[in-house]
Amino acid sequence: MSKNHENPSPRHAKGEDTRKKLVEAALGSFQAQGYRGTGLSQLLNESGFPRGSLYFHFPDGKEQLGVAAMQLARGEIGAGIDTAFEVAKNPTEALRLIADGFAAELETSGFARGCPVTTVALEAGDDTPGLRDACAQTYDDWIERLTAHLKAAGMGAARAGRLATFALSAIEGALILARSRRSTAPLYEAVDELSLLLK
Amino acid sequence: MSKNHENPSPRHAKGEDTRKKLVEAALGSFQAQGYRGTGLSQLLNESGFPRGSLYFHFPDGKEQLGVAAMQLARGEIGAGIDTAFEVAKNPTEALRLIADGFAAELETSGFARGCPVTTVALEAGDDTPGLRDACAQTYDDWIERLTAHLKAAGMGAARAGRLATFALSAIEGALILARSRRSTAPLYEAVDELSLLLK
Repeated sequence: MSKNHENPSPRHAKGEDTRKKLVEAALGSFQAQGYRGTGLSQLLNESGFPRGSLYFHFPDGKEQLGVAAMQLARGEIGAGIDTAFEVAKNPTEALRLIADGFAAELETSGFARGCPVTTVALEAGDDTPGLRDACAQTYDDWIERLTAHLKAAGMGAARAGRLATFALSAIEGALILARSRRSTAPLYEAVDELSLLLK
Repeated sequence: MSKNHENPSPRHAKGEDTRKKLVEAALGSFQAQGYRGTGLSQLLNESGFPRGSLYFHFPDGKEQLGVAAMQLARGEIGAGIDTAFEVAKNPTEALRLIADGFAAELETSGFARGCPVTTVALEAGDDTPGLRDACAQTYDDWIERLTAHLKAAGMGAARAGRLATFALSAIEGALILARSRRSTAPLYEAVDELSLLLK
């Protein structure tokens, strides 16, 4: 729901709601079976919206929908990072809460749903520059948030930036192994190793 | 080239050569644009082989070709891991040599070619169980090799196993960030952080 409209007309609100549901459905599908493995027809069938609603909200096509999905993931996981650091006693506990979020998603989906951005990032190439940029900006955003939280916990700026990048690398990689091995163990082991560097 | 045949007929040798080239072409394409993003027609056009050669060597279709590509990657990168630990003075230097290999591949391909297994692993789902298993076995093989090398360098078995898994997580994740940011920095930063844990 757009915050730019304080009194949206019912019609506008309904359109925003349709757009949001389309983006959520797309993100879920990209997460489980990839960007290229997701057909727009299948997406419309599953979400129950008419083809016209897709063309109306995403006139530039699938890549535009992909960019919107990455922006949704960026905001959702970014908010998850912020919340974890707000409620946790220390950075290690915060990373464990972040791992809990990913572990729950993996387990409830039968290990189908890992990081919603990574699959798309690996598929995005020269033929989808907008999508590639949206993925890169998402990782940058998460690293900036992690850096800010590590600095707030007392770490020097340079060390915080390096550890934030490394923590994201380690967690993204662990998510791949966790999905592949159908076990959340690699995720929690990654947090345990990171905790040794956070001391 | 099969080692089971000491005196292959020229015809057999030619068939094995065709199979090998098809698998290499498939692996390169999966690495750059994903399993689902790779069309068999495009692959045949680029490799110059007739469609019949694909059906002959991979009668079960694309997934069978995918499994063979993952087995090729498993052997190639596995051998790279072994060589790195054989020539390096210590585990940190070995990880740096492994990073060098991935960095060269990223740079010569304009950051298109990251880990050849990860993209496929993330795309593989319930509809391609053979491919999913081949990816999981590949990661397991690499972790076993890393574990053996860390043990040979004097590390206890349990710690070696955990660090091997974590090192693979960190390097795989760093490869994703490196590809996305078009910079090899995350890869070498990951090795620097891992070196702190290897001490």
